[in-house]
Amino acid sequence: MSELRKDPVIERWVIIATERAKRPTDFVRSSAHEKKSEGVCPFCPGNEGKTPPEVLVYSRTGNLDDPNGWWLRVVPNKYPALKREGDLDRIGEGMYDKMNGIGDHEVVIETPDHFVSMADYKVKQVEEIIWAYRDRMIEMKKDNRFKYIMIFKNHGKEAGASLDHPHSQIISLPIVPKRVKEEIEGADRYFNFKGRCVYCDMVRQELGSQKRLIEENEDFIALSPFASRFPFETWILPKQHAADFHEIQKNEVSNFALILRNSLHRIKKVLNDPPYNFMLHTSPRPDTAERLSHYHWHLEITPKLTLVAGFEWGTGFYINPMPPETAAESLRACAQKENENPSTVIQLPSAM
Amino acid sequence: MSELRKDPVIERWVIIATERAKRPTDFVRSSAHEKKSEGVCPFCPGNEGKTPPEVLVYSRTGNLDDPNGWWLRVVPNKYPALKREGDLDRIGEGMYDKMNGIGDHEVVIETPDHFVSMADYKVKQVEEIIWAYRDRMIEMKKDNRFKYIMIFKNHGKEAGASLDHPHSQIISLPIVPKRVKEEIEGADRYFNFKGRCVYCDMVRQELGSQKRLIEENEDFIALSPFASRFPFETWILPKQHAADFHEIQKNEVSNFALILRNSLHRIKKVLNDPPYNFMLHTSPRPDTAERLSHYHWHLEITPKLTLVAGFEWGTGFYINPMPPETAAESLRACAQKENENPSTVIQLPSAM
Repeated sequence: MSELRKDPVIERWVIIATERAKRPTDFVRSSAHEKKSEGVCPFCPGNEGKTPPEVLVYSRTGNLDDPNGWWLRVVPNKYPALKREGDLDRIGEGMYDKMNGIGDHEVVIETPDHFVSMADYKVKQVEEIIWAYRDRMIEMKKDNRFKYIMIFKNHGKEAGASLDHPHSQIISLPIVPKRVKEEIEGADRYFNFKGRCVYCDMVRQELGSQKRLIEENEDFIALSPFASRFPFETWILPKQHAADFHEIQKNEVSNFALILRNSLHRIKKVLNDPPYNFMLHTSPRPDTAERLSHYHWHLEITPKLTLVAGFEWGTGFYINPMPPETAAESLRACAQKENENPSTVIQLPSAM
Repeated sequence: MSELRKDPVIERWVIIATERAKRPTDFVRSSAHEKKSEGVCPFCPGNEGKTPPEVLVYSRTGNLDDPNGWWLRVVPNKYPALKREGDLDRIGEGMYDKMNGIGDHEVVIETPDHFVSMADYKVKQVEEIIWAYRDRMIEMKKDNRFKYIMIFKNHGKEAGASLDHPHSQIISLPIVPKRVKEEIEGADRYFNFKGRCVYCDMVRQELGSQKRLIEENEDFIALSPFASRFPFETWILPKQHAADFHEIQKNEVSNFALILRNSLHRIKKVLNDPPYNFMLHTSPRPDTAERLSHYHWHLEITPKLTLVAGFEWGTGFYINPMPPETAAESLRACAQKENENPSTVIQLPSAM
């Protein structure tokens, strides 16, 4: 079983993924630039038997043997970083702390189409993905061993995607991870000092100055953050204060899908389809010790254009050669895809 | 001038490096895999005029026009992330904080030999490099605008090295960076709780269990850390409690050089010369608010064998497919270079 281990100094947890363990010789060549021959894609229609059984499927017919029936599947990861079965077993090893690697690790197969990328999806397809994120998050929250649920996407090999077929991932964790804790503590500190949500203030200031604004609609704003770590880093925030992603309203799903698809499309056009990651940051489970009223969910998109080197690893301090105001200007100027009318969207039933 | 900007939520600073600024179109292709044609190497003997004038040189003759005269040079970075001249000018922009990018950014040209790598240096040459780190750190500490000095090395293109000629870098910063602050706060918390230095406890436990031990000598230990973020991550710590790297004793310099060269040599042999970063973590200037008595300087080596993807960026939580006990075992088993006798080393005068 995988193990969670805590750094005794800065209290950063790591997953020692023994289920994915490799022999030392497997590392002899960097995997970063190897082209894996994929052979048969396990995520394509007709190959459903090559993945573990679905935990969620959106389908016209409900008939899983009909390869034309589904347009989105969620399946457990075949090589999970964490496993659902077992107890946490928090134990010490001298001065160190560890626990078993308990958690869910699921894959959202976003579309049956192997070759299209999220930047070019119809808005309706992105809505489906957002509903799947929400449905699985609600389901995972029922298990109170899990304190945090992280949704993320790796696009392109250099961003960590091991399969080409468009997919994103959901991991539930038995701890609140460091980066999320820091955001929550920062938001709490700001609230105690100013009496306002730091993200709400950010939305207000960015809408006012327009300098770093990329796009807005009724419910959401896309911007280049003031202290961007990476060139063309893009954040999407709800304009109204909201701590929990899974409480998103139906009309907001349409607008979130629209601004997410458009933001990815701008990045694809301006930067010639670069690798990227996106990460959804939402509140931990309410029964953790964290105070949540001042947190504000959001999505961070980080194109992979520069290398993270010794300076960044050593300091946690980033050197970004692209002023976010310039990045916002060129993303803003990029011509958009025609917007399909989101009002035509029909919410689809889940098959389980 | 470059700008330092603070994330208003988690208080992470970034350098918006306008001096290195690029046009948006410069990012259109990822720079990660481009082979830059280097032409004439500015760090090779005979090309001294292609770098800014030395701030430190170790040389037999003291005659800089003699290309065979020097065996180590320290020069200001020609494309610095930060600049020495100017005032900090801390200012706000609405809710945001920023300041001018004031700092030193120097390059240590470790050897006149373009083709050798630190893993294969004679121990004596590594000692020279350590003396240069120390000399420059002491010099930089005299400017009390600077709160922290970070020494690091990027080896290989994928680890961020833009020139092949062996070199490392020194940056002085007007703030104590987040990652260092976290270590200091963690060490302080541990001391308040247990009354002991967390790193001293780590050294004691690792010497006792031997499970993660790679090498030890009279003054230093090299180990695979219990909560390694990356496969084959290696830390080198002084066995005796010491907060400040620049107070290293002369006999310790020899032993530090030996264990550093050996650790890099083991990584090179076991992993076929992978790209890597190393970062020296030492105390901030004593006039900062940080409490230093419980900090313990050390060096972290991180081979670049896996990709950092959405999960890690979103959570600050790493998935490591290589148990550190297995990594330590294969690094420990690797045959060592013959150890030159460190007692033959003569300390060399600095030319300025």
